Amino acid sequence: MSGYLPVLDWGRRYDRRRLISDGVAAVIVTVMLIPQSLAYAMLAGLPPVVGLYASILPLVAYAIFGSSRTLAVGPVAVVSLLTATAAGAVAAPGSSEYISAAVVLALLSGLILLAMGIFRLGFVANLLSHPVISGFITASGLLIAASQVKHILGVKAGGHTLIELGQSLLPALSTTSLPTLMVGVAATVFLFWSRSKLKPTLERFGLPPGVSTLLSRTGPVLAVAVSILAVIGLDLEARGVAVVGNVPRGLPPLALPPLDLALWSTLLPAAFLISVIGFAESISIAQTLAAKRRQSIRPDQEMIGLGMSNLASAFSGGYPVTGGFARSVVNFDAGAETPAAGAYTAIGIALASLFLTPLIFHLPLAVLAATIIVAVLSLVDLGTLRRTWRYSRFDFASMAGTIVVTLAAGVEAGIITGVALSLLLHLWRSSRPHIAVIGQVPGTRHYRNILRHDVVCAAEVLSVRIDESLWFGNARAVENEIQRVVSERPDLKHLVLNCAAVNGIDASAFESLELVIHRLADQGIDLHLSEVKGPVMDRLAKSSFAEHLTGHVFLSHHEAMEALAPECTKRADRMTRQTSDAPKPSSRPGSIAR
Amino acid sequence: MSGYLPVLDWGRRYDRRRLISDGVAAVIVTVMLIPQSLAYAMLAGLPPVVGLYASILPLVAYAIFGSSRTLAVGPVAVVSLLTATAAGAVAAPGSSEYISAAVVLALLSGLILLAMGIFRLGFVANLLSHPVISGFITASGLLIAASQVKHILGVKAGGHTLIELGQSLLPALSTTSLPTLMVGVAATVFLFWSRSKLKPTLERFGLPPGVSTLLSRTGPVLAVAVSILAVIGLDLEARGVAVVGNVPRGLPPLALPPLDLALWSTLLPAAFLISVIGFAESISIAQTLAAKRRQSIRPDQEMIGLGMSNLASAFSGGYPVTGGFARSVVNFDAGAETPAAGAYTAIGIALASLFLTPLIFHLPLAVLAATIIVAVLSLVDLGTLRRTWRYSRFDFASMAGTIVVTLAAGVEAGIITGVALSLLLHLWRSSRPHIAVIGQVPGTRHYRNILRHDVVCAAEVLSVRIDESLWFGNARAVENEIQRVVSERPDLKHLVLNCAAVNGIDASAFESLELVIHRLADQGIDLHLSEVKGPVMDRLAKSSFAEHLTGHVFLSHHEAMEALAPECTKRADRMTRQTSDAPKPSSRPGSIAR
Repeated sequence: MSGYLPVLDWGRRYDRRRLISDGVAAVIVTVMLIPQSLAYAMLAGLPPVVGLYASILPLVAYAIFGSSRTLAVGPVAVVSLLTATAAGAVAAPGSSEYISAAVVLALLSGLILLAMGIFRLGFVANLLSHPVISGFITASGLLIAASQVKHILGVKAGGHTLIELGQSLLPALSTTSLPTLMVGVAATVFLFWSRSKLKPTLERFGLPPGVSTLLSRTGPVLAVAVSILAVIGLDLEARGVAVVGNVPRGLPPLALPPLDLALWSTLLPAAFLISVIGFAESISIAQTLAAKRRQSIRPDQEMIGLGMSNLASAFSGGYPVTGGFARSVVNFDAGAETPAAGAYTAIGIALASLFLTPLIFHLPLAVLAATIIVAVLSLVDLGTLRRTWRYSRFDFASMAGTIVVTLAAGVEAGIITGVALSLLLHLWRSSRPHIAVIGQVPGTRHYRNILRHDVVCAAEVLSVRIDESLWFGNARAVENEIQRVVSERPDLKHLVLNCAAVNGIDASAFESLELVIHRLADQGIDLHLSEVKGPVMDRLAKSSFAEHLTGHVFLSHHEAMEALAPECTKRADRMTRQTSDAPKPSSRPGSIAR
Repeated sequence: MSGYLPVLDWGRRYDRRRLISDGVAAVIVTVMLIPQSLAYAMLAGLPPVVGLYASILPLVAYAIFGSSRTLAVGPVAVVSLLTATAAGAVAAPGSSEYISAAVVLALLSGLILLAMGIFRLGFVANLLSHPVISGFITASGLLIAASQVKHILGVKAGGHTLIELGQSLLPALSTTSLPTLMVGVAATVFLFWSRSKLKPTLERFGLPPGVSTLLSRTGPVLAVAVSILAVIGLDLEARGVAVVGNVPRGLPPLALPPLDLALWSTLLPAAFLISVIGFAESISIAQTLAAKRRQSIRPDQEMIGLGMSNLASAFSGGYPVTGGFARSVVNFDAGAETPAAGAYTAIGIALASLFLTPLIFHLPLAVLAATIIVAVLSLVDLGTLRRTWRYSRFDFASMAGTIVVTLAAGVEAGIITGVALSLLLHLWRSSRPHIAVIGQVPGTRHYRNILRHDVVCAAEVLSVRIDESLWFGNARAVENEIQRVVSERPDLKHLVLNCAAVNGIDASAFESLELVIHRLADQGIDLHLSEVKGPVMDRLAKSSFAEHLTGHVFLSHHEAMEALAPECTKRADRMTRQTSDAPKPSSRPGSIAR
């Protein structure tokens, strides 16, 4: 039972010391979450209060069902953007249908995550490669920042791609509200400054490093408080500075999400994307933090935790939530020890929605936009782009493709293109296998590529290593390549395929292999296999393969050569290895011949 | 130049002996092709004469550009069905728009094949796995046979799926034309009989086997001739037997295909399917026949040959063509030696369209339908379904999925489902890698799975072999598995990853590997690699990997063990191998431990 309810596990050992650590962390996260939840709700095109609603019950649900000790769940930037895109496709922002759509997205995401968790389908998130996620987050960060420029300028604009945003912003530039721009720029500059400089400044004033670190996180709350005072004191509303306006006071309304099946089916694909992307983001944060304290995350339970969290959001007028990076790190650094910290944060937000909402009336939208811009620009990571280019052109192509399509055609097209591109490139790579002719490294019983090593080969026996599982995508390429290497050697009597790297042979490749055996037999060449793995051999044994094979199956490649070319093998055994082929145990990658 | 024009190669050595062989083969193929071309045009929903047109210039074009010596190009059943589906989606069968659509399909297929040949994109056809092609051909055969039942019954019906066909046939049963049914059933019975029994019967009448074989191929022509005489003699037309009717006499009209860009873009996806499926069918026949005479097929040139052939079809009022299985085998058996046989066949068909078309007027449609049914039912191959089930459940799932969707939702949905399913299953398989803990086979320097072999292991050094390339789909699974095997061994100091089966490490897996190194370091365990392949090592050397690796890279796994666990290795070296682990060179697959 405690498998599905981690709270039963840690709750049993809960004590006063943990209560205090969790309580301190919760206060700090609450202070951080109030402006974030308002801002991300605005980014999602929703009334700011929805952000508060999404930061209460979902946190309690995660505290009960989540497997991470320190993940801080709630509204996050990328999921808010995805919500805006999906809800914007079915209703006009600000309409009650739009709010319903957001609630339905939370409901569907919750159901999808719950189902995936129960049926252990967490591997679906593996389809998102690192370069694709990284590219998607970078591009989303840029898109989100661009979408907030209108609030800084105090103009009307919209759009879901960089092009649309640009097209709607340019003509609106002439209507820029100067007071709004001043408030927005001031807030942005202050927030950027507070990210890096507030902490050293506080330390210079003599505060201990720990306290400075925590206080430095209060930048957004300071900006919110000061700007509210400024709006009231300078009567900036009258000068055209847009503010949040009336926020209903009180706890979130418990209500059933709209039961509109047509709407559900329209939003299902978007809800699936939100679930998978939200999960992929969240699990990587959770695992990083868990590894630091030698704890473990169970991906399937994590899906259940996030699923329950989204269901709680849907039943309390919220919108899709997931684990947030910055908040989780703050929670961890502030000393949170159990998921109870999340529940205490929920109490903090509940108190805020009961008592602070009248103050939020005067909060300028430009300040919320500044909060968002400063938060998301830290997601933009172009260094990874450079590193990925150096490591692999294929991975770079996936990443660059994801970024370009996300910026030019929107988040949904971007992530779908990224996944498709990375899968196609993976298939393309494994459909062009590396095939090496190998020979014995003198003085060892080891066989390596003749092009990279000084090795010994026999004239009548050819050893070939195929560096790929055999499947329909490469079966024909392997056929052709074997025919090619064989045709270059007229004296050949035996071909030994080293199958150490062949991890599977599917039905198409199996037919190809039989064809190869018959074609070689026509040329008077026997085909042998060596180092065939257990699972592969099991499959071959179930088929008619044994009747077709003209040669034998050897445990090790050396045994095959001892049987087929004994003279040559004995000679190579007696030789001493070339120094260039002798990596010392102290050698480092890159320094040895392979 | 002779690379792109194989005719320059074989044409130079053309002599009288070859002329005679090719001529004889051409006569036999012509006799076979006349009824087939009429029938397949009817299957495609086109006037029968279009089938003749598609059997003249396309054959000449292939003779010039094709790389197979014996492939017989022309209308084939599956491509005709695909043409009917695609043209039927944009126009009503029998309309002039429908004929234009067929011509455009030939044009686009020609251009696609030509482009793929020139840019060497032939590997695209590799995406069609054997089980998918086999399932698709079987299901198409059943669909085609079902679609012809209406002609046998003499009723009106239509549809592109088994369900649609059934729904339109059932209510029409009451209008069955009895004379048509009799003609149709008689022709079907005769054709089935002649396939298997005509040859032995002729031999019993004293004809030599060679002549009997060739004469036995004339079954369809006999059926056509006899039924024409019967229609004229018994005045069957007046009794409701539908006949081909007026067929324009003369050579195909040379004309530009319609330049309707909207139509082109609508038909492009279908033309792509026709090209790839036609090519996949054709190349496998061509390679099978070429292998029998030790000739070779160049897939890229083959695409060019088929592309030119389809362009020739488009410019002479034809429809998409490709290499046909039965005709090619007959051509090969009849002794065709060069593609000139195809050009002579074209002359034969041209003569037929000049002089025989008035006779074809009285040919009953039911006889053409019988020809099609008998031809396509030989494509239905349920034995492969059973063999594939035994070999692999995954391959079986692809095949069964292709068959079911093709029958239930049509050819295009079927082939797309098949390709998607087979790729997804392939990805799924390689995302759950086989990971084995390995130990030294005593008396050898070879390391195998501890669960399958009696092997020697050291307590402080764990050897793990990962049987898959590392990529984003399995990176997380590998991480978890390594953590699992390590957590079971508290005394562990060294983990050696045997990378003999790791054919690639992508950027995501690389990040995972660095994470694994750091996590193991936290637990006081060094990570070593052995048997890393050249291409993989090259990539690692380009990265920051060397700075992170806590252990070393060893050429062979044995060297790693000699360095890390010398005592244990020496002991295992001195031991003699268990007999159960000693496959003799004479052992057969399945008979040895792996």
